[in-house]
Amino acid sequence: MLERITSPGALKTFGRAEIDGLAQEIRDELVRVCAKNGGHLAPNLGVVELTMAMIHELDLDAGDKIVWDVSHQAYVHKLLTGRADRFDTIRMGGGLSGFSMMTESKYDAFGAGHASTSISAALGMATARDLAGGKETIVAVIGDGALTGGLAYEALNNAGERKSNFIVVLNDNEMSIAPNVGSLATYLARMRSKPFVNRAREVAKDVLGQIPFGETARKAFATAETAAMRFVSPSEKTAVIFEELGFRYIGPIDGHDYDSLCEIFANAKKIDGPVLLHVRTVKGRGFSTAENDARVFHGVGPGTYEADTGVVLPKAANPRPTFSAAFADALITLAERDSRIIGITAAMPDGTALAKFGKKFPTRFFDVGIAEAHAVCFAAGAAASDLKPVCAIYSTFLQRAYDQIIHDVAIQNLHVVFCMDRAGVIGDDGPTHMGLYDVAYLRTIPNVTIMAPRVEEEMLPMLEHAMAIDGAVGIRYPRGSTNGKYAIPVAPIVHGKAEVLVEGADVAILCLGNTCDNGMEAAALLAAEGITPTVVNARFVKPMDEELLVRLAQTHEHFITLEEHAIAGGFGSAVGEVVLDHNLGVTVERIGVPDVLVHHNSQAKQRALYGLTAENVASRVRAASSIARV
Amino acid sequence: MLERITSPGALKTFGRAEIDGLAQEIRDELVRVCAKNGGHLAPNLGVVELTMAMIHELDLDAGDKIVWDVSHQAYVHKLLTGRADRFDTIRMGGGLSGFSMMTESKYDAFGAGHASTSISAALGMATARDLAGGKETIVAVIGDGALTGGLAYEALNNAGERKSNFIVVLNDNEMSIAPNVGSLATYLARMRSKPFVNRAREVAKDVLGQIPFGETARKAFATAETAAMRFVSPSEKTAVIFEELGFRYIGPIDGHDYDSLCEIFANAKKIDGPVLLHVRTVKGRGFSTAENDARVFHGVGPGTYEADTGVVLPKAANPRPTFSAAFADALITLAERDSRIIGITAAMPDGTALAKFGKKFPTRFFDVGIAEAHAVCFAAGAAASDLKPVCAIYSTFLQRAYDQIIHDVAIQNLHVVFCMDRAGVIGDDGPTHMGLYDVAYLRTIPNVTIMAPRVEEEMLPMLEHAMAIDGAVGIRYPRGSTNGKYAIPVAPIVHGKAEVLVEGADVAILCLGNTCDNGMEAAALLAAEGITPTVVNARFVKPMDEELLVRLAQTHEHFITLEEHAIAGGFGSAVGEVVLDHNLGVTVERIGVPDVLVHHNSQAKQRALYGLTAENVASRVRAASSIARV
Repeated sequence: MLERITSPGALKTFGRAEIDGLAQEIRDELVRVCAKNGGHLAPNLGVVELTMAMIHELDLDAGDKIVWDVSHQAYVHKLLTGRADRFDTIRMGGGLSGFSMMTESKYDAFGAGHASTSISAALGMATARDLAGGKETIVAVIGDGALTGGLAYEALNNAGERKSNFIVVLNDNEMSIAPNVGSLATYLARMRSKPFVNRAREVAKDVLGQIPFGETARKAFATAETAAMRFVSPSEKTAVIFEELGFRYIGPIDGHDYDSLCEIFANAKKIDGPVLLHVRTVKGRGFSTAENDARVFHGVGPGTYEADTGVVLPKAANPRPTFSAAFADALITLAERDSRIIGITAAMPDGTALAKFGKKFPTRFFDVGIAEAHAVCFAAGAAASDLKPVCAIYSTFLQRAYDQIIHDVAIQNLHVVFCMDRAGVIGDDGPTHMGLYDVAYLRTIPNVTIMAPRVEEEMLPMLEHAMAIDGAVGIRYPRGSTNGKYAIPVAPIVHGKAEVLVEGADVAILCLGNTCDNGMEAAALLAAEGITPTVVNARFVKPMDEELLVRLAQTHEHFITLEEHAIAGGFGSAVGEVVLDHNLGVTVERIGVPDVLVHHNSQAKQRALYGLTAENVASRVRAASSIARV
Repeated sequence: MLERITSPGALKTFGRAEIDGLAQEIRDELVRVCAKNGGHLAPNLGVVELTMAMIHELDLDAGDKIVWDVSHQAYVHKLLTGRADRFDTIRMGGGLSGFSMMTESKYDAFGAGHASTSISAALGMATARDLAGGKETIVAVIGDGALTGGLAYEALNNAGERKSNFIVVLNDNEMSIAPNVGSLATYLARMRSKPFVNRAREVAKDVLGQIPFGETARKAFATAETAAMRFVSPSEKTAVIFEELGFRYIGPIDGHDYDSLCEIFANAKKIDGPVLLHVRTVKGRGFSTAENDARVFHGVGPGTYEADTGVVLPKAANPRPTFSAAFADALITLAERDSRIIGITAAMPDGTALAKFGKKFPTRFFDVGIAEAHAVCFAAGAAASDLKPVCAIYSTFLQRAYDQIIHDVAIQNLHVVFCMDRAGVIGDDGPTHMGLYDVAYLRTIPNVTIMAPRVEEEMLPMLEHAMAIDGAVGIRYPRGSTNGKYAIPVAPIVHGKAEVLVEGADVAILCLGNTCDNGMEAAALLAAEGITPTVVNARFVKPMDEELLVRLAQTHEHFITLEEHAIAGGFGSAVGEVVLDHNLGVTVERIGVPDVLVHHNSQAKQRALYGLTAENVASRVRAASSIARV
């Protein structure tokens, strides 16, 4: 049946009798493709009926819009908007993205990858529609987890005042990536306990018949005996938060009851002013393995499970720990020695591996929800009271706390350590998740130290150093692990000092973090040719080891810098500043990510695309050496 | 009496009969000093009794802490914590800061300058206290305006769940900097209409006697006839938001009733779990001019009014428009031609001058409250629907929307224009307000254009260009205005092209934005000596005019870059990247703000401190020229 769906309008040609079969076919396709390509399986299984109902009731070709928050749950939307034929390619290089992308389809009203943006963006669209005198329906779909982000609240607060017509679907599945936290989560849990409101005709009669719907009318209904009316005010207090913020609240609604969803959407889009539809869904719905362990099945890698049986396959043994795992172990080691160390995550206990620390030190572990700004400001407050907070936050998500790093940590000169996981190219999640800007955005700030370990073994001494110094300290490290080939013994960390891995001549390869492997491998390739470049593990971007650069300039004519970071303003740029400040007279060639968006692909291919390979480094050294010899 | 207050404990030695006199003396001092030094007069007049009551009831010497949100309202706190003798120096170079500063006093528990951080930081402190087994009282004082910031909500949400003991004082004065916006503001307005709850003994009896205080007990009280109990549930719904978020709500409380405030604080600090005290104050209280026009008296410059009479003094005529005014006029001109242009501010309609645009185009003007992330994401949504949004946000505040610039604008390749006012050194507000990082944090992102006008007259053509191109566009400009001496005709804007102001030789002075004046003045100073540097108005940081730099390198040996920005990663750094990429063989000397925090002082002194003067530039050119001639 999916083959028949070449545009969103196609769904309207399906008879009611076909709908359940289509839902099953969609689920089968999700399970089949995610088994092969990996992806956000459980969230998409949870929104099959919700997506079908929206696409049935809205007219995307006439300008109605759905804005998916985070948008990792937009696979069903892709299947129903003319992309079923390419669904097989999702998350693969050149294939469909695992997220909404405006460049991928005109039916993707907005792009995303980070949480909590949809209400804000949808309000912008609703405002544009109002200014143009349009009548299109705008829907934002946001998970309960993303509601912990302050941006969602800023948008709710503004929307409630502006009174624009639009619909926020709260897709409430009782968890974000990890089990949800925060008092709002507790609040939603209470609301969830109410009976479902799915008698759509009565809902319609009530909602549409009673606008404007004042306090008096509401009280009258509350005392009436009509059970269907309870959704308006299901208890004395339920839903009051959203109602007080200016939204018409409808819910909770069974998110797997297609017919009711259709009727409710058909009616909700006629309501004047902002509407909040509280839809309750089950992550992993219809695929029992995923339903039973939605946390594991939130996002899976290729080959995680067997599509036919749902059996979870054994993981390929990784001979090396990931940087994340090395971080968690290092933190535990240090926390055992110093009771003032605390660990903070913003809803990523598994991704950052901080969960392991949390198991060991439950009272010193803080998951603040999807709320990076709060994570950092909270850390600053704790540091002002003499704790030693470590924030484990992906490089890309730390962008959300940028002002807190400047305003609450650096300017206050407080000691907070930022462990920036997923720094560099991150593979199949695409541009929204790349960790390519942290060096630039951090190194411009005073009172900041920036480090990067070259191998997993360097994590412990580096973190130990980070805990021992002052101010804001960022440690950046990539997704995954090195192959361990150059996990040679790590020299003791000295503040602001690089580690010279190979002393050579003519050309110095200055490497940041895991790019040291490329530098070492390039040197190995060149050894046979009699070319012996110097290879340096920079360790520190800030403070930069100026003394070493000055010394190297005496015996080298060329510096080549390597970094998994945007070259505009990055590590190579910082090296360049030193070269020019000291008028060192060497050339500087910067290898890193150029000024483009990095699209989803394997990490290896992304690295190859931007010359972050031993072969390319060797060829650049060869070229530079030949100039040096002339 | 203020002379007697050399530490916070001193207040406790005052008899009740002296308190009103002391409050008056504090108000007189605020009015006297702000008349002379400028400052946030109205907010401080509004918190005299509140601050006195807190300092009376807390023991700051024993570790109790007050965290002031934004902290421009901490003058009274300074007067009462041993800084009365230096209060005369507030906001003057080397004197007291106009904000809380941990380095200034051990009684400043945290520093601030931006809004919405206090609850988060206080929760961090409360957590540290809990881990240490302490009992200190921690108080965050936040205005109703700052509650529109998402960070405040993230912290409330987390605090309500964590259940740590601490007190949030909601200092509700019905306005932030501009009249408050958002549905929460409407909500608070409803709460404000309730009778004051100042019967502190009854409050105490009730609160302390009824812990834990469940739903049943609350309902019982709601029906009881005890008027004092109404604070618990003053109406069916009032305060429900805070109660639902896990806070014990007490209020509204008359923020000018010292005795009641003391009693309520004495009791509130004994309550288990987070407490929200809703205190209603009047901005400008006790100084009628300020009370009547709190918006003007929110922050005043030196010499705004006569201290004795309150008479507002005529402004010294400024022969030049400010950059802000030039921006507003330019936007109005362009908006008259293009109905798709909208203007967005985050609670700074006056500071950014966007209010003028708002008067002209009320339906195209959006003040979203203190919510920069939402401002930018909302703009992105509007841009996705073909509007042309202009966000007028100070450089320092745009830091709060960094991820939205990357994730919602640049990655989506949407066309949003950021007019970054207060870029550069900003004078007496100190490190939290400096606009020194925007070039670095923006230029690392793809799909971004960065410009800076050299004079006010360049604003219109530059903004016109910004509206005509694609992607994220930042225009940075300083506080105040140029002196107009070099307001020579502005050449047409060509994308990515600089403007050569003076063609010379040997040394090229490459200037960003308003630093062109220093370049021109330096050239004028040097003309008599027969030294003729080239002076360039860069106009674009990104894309950089590489072609020009390559051409200049043929006839110049030295580049000197000028910028009101951190030199790490800034404009000079970007010039350096081009010089090294093309191996131009020229020296690059970067003049800008070094890697330090810039403390409050006059803009002129701040510029002088970092060599951003014509004299220094001339002397650097002289030194470079002499090398060039050797």
